[in-house]
Amino acid sequence: MKIIRRPTRVIYVGNVPVGGNNPIVIQSMTKANPSNFKAILEEINNLIDAGCELVRVAIPDSKSLEVFHSLVREVEIPLIADIHFNWKLAIAAIEAGASGIRINPGNIGGINKFREILKNLTQAKQVALRIGINAGSLEKELLLKYKHPQAKALVESAILYSNIAEEAGFLNYKISLKSSDVLTTIKAYRMISALTSAPLHLGITEAGSELSGIVKSSIGIGSLLLEGIGDTIRVSLSAPSKEEVSVAKEILRSLHLYNKGVEVISCPTCGRCEYDLFSIVKKIKELTSNINTPYLKVAIMGCVVNGPGEASEADIGVAGGKGKGVLFKKGKIIRTITTEEIIPVIMEEINRHSVK
Amino acid sequence: MKIIRRPTRVIYVGNVPVGGNNPIVIQSMTKANPSNFKAILEEINNLIDAGCELVRVAIPDSKSLEVFHSLVREVEIPLIADIHFNWKLAIAAIEAGASGIRINPGNIGGINKFREILKNLTQAKQVALRIGINAGSLEKELLLKYKHPQAKALVESAILYSNIAEEAGFLNYKISLKSSDVLTTIKAYRMISALTSAPLHLGITEAGSELSGIVKSSIGIGSLLLEGIGDTIRVSLSAPSKEEVSVAKEILRSLHLYNKGVEVISCPTCGRCEYDLFSIVKKIKELTSNINTPYLKVAIMGCVVNGPGEASEADIGVAGGKGKGVLFKKGKIIRTITTEEIIPVIMEEINRHSVK
Repeated sequence: MKIIRRPTRVIYVGNVPVGGNNPIVIQSMTKANPSNFKAILEEINNLIDAGCELVRVAIPDSKSLEVFHSLVREVEIPLIADIHFNWKLAIAAIEAGASGIRINPGNIGGINKFREILKNLTQAKQVALRIGINAGSLEKELLLKYKHPQAKALVESAILYSNIAEEAGFLNYKISLKSSDVLTTIKAYRMISALTSAPLHLGITEAGSELSGIVKSSIGIGSLLLEGIGDTIRVSLSAPSKEEVSVAKEILRSLHLYNKGVEVISCPTCGRCEYDLFSIVKKIKELTSNINTPYLKVAIMGCVVNGPGEASEADIGVAGGKGKGVLFKKGKIIRTITTEEIIPVIMEEINRHSVK
Repeated sequence: MKIIRRPTRVIYVGNVPVGGNNPIVIQSMTKANPSNFKAILEEINNLIDAGCELVRVAIPDSKSLEVFHSLVREVEIPLIADIHFNWKLAIAAIEAGASGIRINPGNIGGINKFREILKNLTQAKQVALRIGINAGSLEKELLLKYKHPQAKALVESAILYSNIAEEAGFLNYKISLKSSDVLTTIKAYRMISALTSAPLHLGITEAGSELSGIVKSSIGIGSLLLEGIGDTIRVSLSAPSKEEVSVAKEILRSLHLYNKGVEVISCPTCGRCEYDLFSIVKKIKELTSNINTPYLKVAIMGCVVNGPGEASEADIGVAGGKGKGVLFKKGKIIRTITTEEIIPVIMEEINRHSVK
């Protein structure tokens, strides 16, 4: 089974293409104080190391705008300015060198303010706009009409502002429709996907604590990607931003949409496992987290029940037993190794295949 | 949006109904040494506390069979015996009081051995069978035919053994089709769902390290549940079994299929958040993890941007700021509280609504 992506047009966030047949772009947002240049820069660099391709930074005031202006000059990937309430900050962010701005129609001050921003966007070069609808801050008119921030209301808001952008001749925009409710989110994206050719930014907002955030984002983003919907994703977690990128990578990897780095599969273990599989898996994941090319599938299996069968599907695999294990490569048994040899032998094989 | 479940017939694993309109059952499997009665009993009791409704235990030998026999007498929920290779152990497990047995057609020794097990099952009362197909241990004939453990091969194996069960007059069975590949798993369950009325047990096998296991299980199990497929679920993680149950609960809760306990939503925070939201969310999750009734939605929000709007959707909510926050109940502002008051005030409200 292969995912067939729904066609969208290509936009550019700085030099990063989003939409069409381009790989799905991973993005995140900084959590450090946006007035603290050093802290934000460090966070962005950590995000880049983790594999993040676009970073969004909140700009709530003029101090953070100054910091943003400096960041744009330091950071190698495109930065997106996150703007609420103050349309003038959006224009200032474009002038400061933002590669994209995120506007929330529900709080930017109405259609005329939005048109002012569009004027500046059409004059700028490769600055993208995200029309970022959020169930928690929908326009009052739509909340009155629909009573509740249901999927239809999110879609109506997005289409209204998309039409205004298109009338102004501005097409370099994408859309997001976020809700903390997975089912509402899925329904809203399915609806908008049939109504627009703009690329879609996927995410579940206010996703909760770390575990529930991972689960909600995986189901919401994952099932939409499975339907071919989505061109860029952001996982929101109540956790350090770097973890958002790890989860995003795992989501894409699960669906064969991220063919970089090392995928480690392992068994959950049962009463049959006679060695410490968990710590070996953890160690190999740690040692391989920064390898981004090429794609390799590594299997660490607990016993003979599914071990050899499953591991034979992997590029490299070990089916462990008491004190020793069997090493496989591309379905062929290479040799028996001791439990102590598992990590060094697997890492040696991985390094032989990897480009640094 | 509401999930419409595909109709399946109801089977019984001991006194637990699976399939039809019954709530989706959460199950897990023990990881302790199955010969160690005390360790397994402790693990099962932890699983029950976490909300697990069915527990599977590996029975690789006669020592573990003895332990299983004793466990059946001690444990209040139905126990399932996990059998590989040895059909006689399956029959002995039924005699020892198993409420269900899991058989892997790929390694049980062929159709005649399977028929022997069925004879014993038809004579037992409310003992269920799981025909548990696994991509890593498919029958040799099917691997030769399909070259690769693809979805079609998993389905063919399941249908073959289902037909044998039905011919023997045994209908109290469910089916699982596990693979470590999310797309193969989804495809296989979609196919079998159109071919059988037996309840389906969902899971992704060898799901990898903790994070990738959570992500893969959430996408695989979650997207199938979203399509109405699945009657019982097991999350497989290379982590303690109790965590498998927490993830299973989060998956069901995200899809409105688990209406028990306290759901805590929170925002991912951005540069605007002026208090330590993460630790407050973590603490409230900890304090509420054992509350199982009734259902309450609690929102812990970082700031005024989406806070009040989103929190008004929750039964109880706080939108925090510098040193203080606003308390909501069912959409109405109750009062302003200090940051220090957030946890005690929220817990007081939760306890007022909860049945212990």
